[in-house]
This record gives sequence, C-alpha cells and structure tokens, in this order.
Amino acid sequence: MDISVIGAGAMGMLFGGYLSAKHNVTMIGRNAQKADNIAKNGITIRETSGEERTYYPSSVSDTSGMNAAELVILFTKSGSSEEALEKNKALIGRDTVLMTLQNGAGHEELLKKYAPEENIIIGTTQQGSYKLDDRSVCHSGIGSTALGVICGRCERFSHIADAFEQCSLPCEVTDNVRQMIWSKLMINASSSVLSGIVQTAQGYVAENEALWSIAKKLIAEICAVACADGYKFDAEEQTERIYKHLKNAPGGYTSIYADIKAGRKTEVRRINGFVADTAKRLGISAPVNETVTELVIAMEGKNEGRL
Amino acid sequence: MDISVIGAGAMGMLFGGYLSAKHNVTMIGRNAQKADNIAKNGITIRETSGEERTYYPSSVSDTSGMNAAELVILFTKSGSSEEALEKNKALIGRDTVLMTLQNGAGHEELLKKYAPEENIIIGTTQQGSYKLDDRSVCHSGIGSTALGVICGRCERFSHIADAFEQCSLPCEVTDNVRQMIWSKLMINASSSVLSGIVQTAQGYVAENEALWSIAKKLIAEICAVACADGYKFDAEEQTERIYKHLKNAPGGYTSIYADIKAGRKTEVRRINGFVADTAKRLGISAPVNETVTELVIAMEGKNEGRL
Repeated sequence: MDISVIGAGAMGMLFGGYLSAKHNVTMIGRNAQKADNIAKNGITIRETSGEERTYYPSSVSDTSGMNAAELVILFTKSGSSEEALEKNKALIGRDTVLMTLQNGAGHEELLKKYAPEENIIIGTTQQGSYKLDDRSVCHSGIGSTALGVICGRCERFSHIADAFEQCSLPCEVTDNVRQMIWSKLMINASSSVLSGIVQTAQGYVAENEALWSIAKKLIAEICAVACADGYKFDAEEQTERIYKHLKNAPGGYTSIYADIKAGRKTEVRRINGFVADTAKRLGISAPVNETVTELVIAMEGKNEGRL
Repeated sequence: MDISVIGAGAMGMLFGGYLSAKHNVTMIGRNAQKADNIAKNGITIRETSGEERTYYPSSVSDTSGMNAAELVILFTKSGSSEEALEKNKALIGRDTVLMTLQNGAGHEELLKKYAPEENIIIGTTQQGSYKLDDRSVCHSGIGSTALGVICGRCERFSHIADAFEQCSLPCEVTDNVRQMIWSKLMINASSSVLSGIVQTAQGYVAENEALWSIAKKLIAEICAVACADGYKFDAEEQTERIYKHLKNAPGGYTSIYADIKAGRKTEVRRINGFVADTAKRLGISAPVNETVTELVIAMEGKNEGRL
C-alpha cells in the first residue's frame, strides 16, 4: 500500500517506521533538514526490551507535484493540522483515504475540508512513543489501534486494518470508535492537562488530594457530556480506571507538560476544549473543562505576554 | 494606646511603624533574630516619593508572661493565624480588642476562639506595602482602612479609628465592612490567584483573552455568592472595576504569585476557598473558584510531591 505519514514526530515515526516494513511509506516533515536525515539514515525504533531496528521509508518536506497516496495518516499535533493538510494536499486524491490518529477528538471537522466524508477514518491508538532524537524514537507503549468511520460502514476499511496488522501493529475496525476516542481523551483531559498546569509528573495528579479532586470533577463532567452525546460512561468506573492508570505509571511526563514547559502550543483545544465545545453544543455546562482549557491557553501565551 | 501587632511582614511593619508615632506599639514576630533587628534598628518606611522615616516600636518574638494589650492586630498570613494566636495568647485579655486586617475573608471564625465576639474587629484596608528587607518596607499603596464588628454596633470602636487617624492612617468604622471585604477579596480572587497560577504580572490577566475569560467567571461566581449571602454586587460593574484596576497597575506582582514561586503556602484558602466554602454553605455552585483553590493548593505542595 502507498502510505504517506504527515508529521514526523514521535508517533508519526513509530507508525511510519513499522508500516514501512511491508508498505511503500513516505514520511512528510515540515523541516527539510530533518526530512533529509530520515531519508538518509532511516528511522530507528528502540523497543522497551532495548532491541533496536532501523526502517527506511522515503522522507520529504515538499510534496508539491507528488502523486496522491492510497492512505494519508495525519500525525501532526492538532494545532498544526490545517497548515499541514493545506501544504500537502497534493497527496490527497479523489480516492485517498485520509486518517487521523491524533490525540483528542473532533479532528474530522477539519479533515472534511480536504476529503469526502466517506474517505475519512478517525481512530485512536494505545501505542505510545517518545522521541530520542530527530530520527529515533522509543516505543514506550504497546497496544491496539482502533479505526472507525464518520459515515457508512466501517468494514469497508478492513483492508487498512489488515495492512497495519501485517506490520505488527494490532488493529481493528470498529463501529465503536468514538466511544474509544472519548475513553482515551478522558485520560489526557484529566491527568495530562493537570500535570501540565502544575508542571509535575502525572502520578502527582493521583497523589495530591487537591489535584485529584479537580481530576474527579473533570472526569465527571466528561462522562456527563459524553453520555449526553450518546456514549456510555459511568463516572465512578472511569475515575477508578484513571486512578489505576496513574498509579501504574506515576513517573510519566505528558506531552502537555512538555509543551507548556517549552512554551509551545499544546493540544488542549482538541482535548478539554473539545469537551467544552461539545457541552456548549448540547446546552450543558462543563465549567471545569472550560477553565483548564483557558488556563493552558493562557500558559502557552505567557512568554510573549509577560509584562 | 497599648497596641500589639502580631506578624512583622510588610503590612504588619507598615501599620506597626505608623501607629508607633503616637502609641505604645509592640511588634511580635516569630523569628527572634528579626525581632531583635527591629528592636535595635527600628522599622524604616519608604514612601513612593522616596522619603524615608524610621519608627521605633518595641519588638519581641516571645510574649509569654507579658501583659494583655488594649488592641491586638493580627497581620500574619492567614495560614499562620492559629499558630500565632496560640503562641501569643498572653496578649489577649478579657478586655483586649482583637482585630484582623488580613487578606481574604472568614478570619473571625478563628478569632472567636481567642476573644469574645464583642471584642472582635474585622477590617480591610486599601493601604499596600512590600518588604525591602527584614526591617524596611515600601509604602506602595495609600488608601483608607475600614473597621467593622461581628456583633453589636460598630460605633463603640470609634476611638480605635481615631487612634489610626492620629497616625496618618485614614480610618472609619462602618456597618458595611463585609461588603468592603467582599469587594477587596474579589480582586485577589481573580487577578492575584490567576497571575499566581500562570506566574505572570497581574496585568496579563486582563491582557490575555483566555485568562480574562476565567477572571470573568470567577467574578460572576463571587458576585452570585456574595449576593446570595446578602451583599450587593453587580457582576458587570465589578468586572469593569477589576479590569480598570489591572490596566492601572499592569506590572504588579501579587503575594500569591510570590508564594507559589517561592514554594510557600498561599492565602488562597481564605480567598477563593472562602468563596467556595460560602457557596457550599448556601447550597449554590462555584466550580471555578473551587477549581482554582485546589489548583493553588496543589501547586503549593508540588515541591514535596514531585515524583
């Protein structure tokens, strides 16, 4: 399969590298020097066992004049999605399947501007990775990837799940994908955002009584919004699930933590911001999600705004 | 008048210094070395004009065995109130007037454990100061001080307002003191707490759209809670007032900012925490005040809790 991966960050490199074992993969990065580095030296993936393997996908920063791909996977940070799609729209033809596996939810609204609804896949993955350098990642979390559709039947994309499976990436198509996206979002919207604001490891969110109290309010609001939107969540169960998650990986630092620390734009608009927007659309209230969204946005801007 | 000022911070030194011009003032600090320093070298107050004057109150750190004062002014940070009152209770006799001019609200609950209700004054001041060193302050804000009671008629304390006035501290007794305490609290609860969480100058709260949106929600909640408790506030008017305040002093750094930066305990429990507690007592909801209270408490603890 002809696959383009837009975004050569930690997750883009992980999927692009793995998929290149059996498919014709092109990595698209916006930095020409980094793209050349991957083209020349490949992507090295280190497993948690310590084992390393290098993969050799194509790699470019300029796609103008290139042919459309069979599958385009968008793996940029959500704040860069629009710029990335606009710059690389040559890759998206009439029959191209356009997939997002990005963090958060609601990405399909933008994707619909670049591809017909029936060609769009929204998904979520339990795979995790972090960057070691510009062409190397550590494959830190192993799990399945779920693919779903925004119209029609998901089964028509079974061949894409198969293409992932061939490359040791467990994958399924499911009618339940939005439920799974809410489920992953809930972890990011509670532990990631709070550890980012307070600038601590994520385990502190469960350790500190005051912070855990906010996390519980966030989770309760998210469950209420998701339920009002037709999905099934029990706030108590979800609270327990996220508590266990934090107790199992207390030392982890999240991407919102790293982005705030570095003064970069975060993905909060598609995480807690998505919850606040959905609440507004449904006419219900989600003041804590709204507040933390605005707080993170204010923190992103403080380096410019500091008086 | 025999006056003891408990707490030799910036505000304690400002009032203790000024009052010592006409009264017999004793400063009480918990640090023996710093108390000795004031006893030997006095308190130097620098006016914004640049003019400096040094005042010579008594100054001690140990009050055991001392006689009761006519007036005790509590000027510690609210988190230290109980420890300070307990340690210095020799100063509070049957007829001692016990006054708080501390930031925030709700201090009377603690004061009632140390003096009969009829001897308690709660107040608020527009005076402002910040520390230059352990015995010097800059008198950065000039304004009036309002004194009120929690039972009976406020006029019985007119002689205390007079004692302040004699020392160039404009002062009045008023039946309206709680309204004024809410009014000051509202500024601290919006601008101070948000600039503390984001670690910026307070002007950024009005400059940054996302942060100002949170401030407006805080102010609206506080007005609703204060109104439910019998005071009169219009949220729109208050929002406008606080916006102007921030535009007039954009570069100011608040005590919550400094406390979070230094890893010290803040006064948030008696500011936004008081709002959240009052809301709970009245059966109404104040989720944004509750959230920022918990967030600040979590930030206070993060140096110990960091994983």
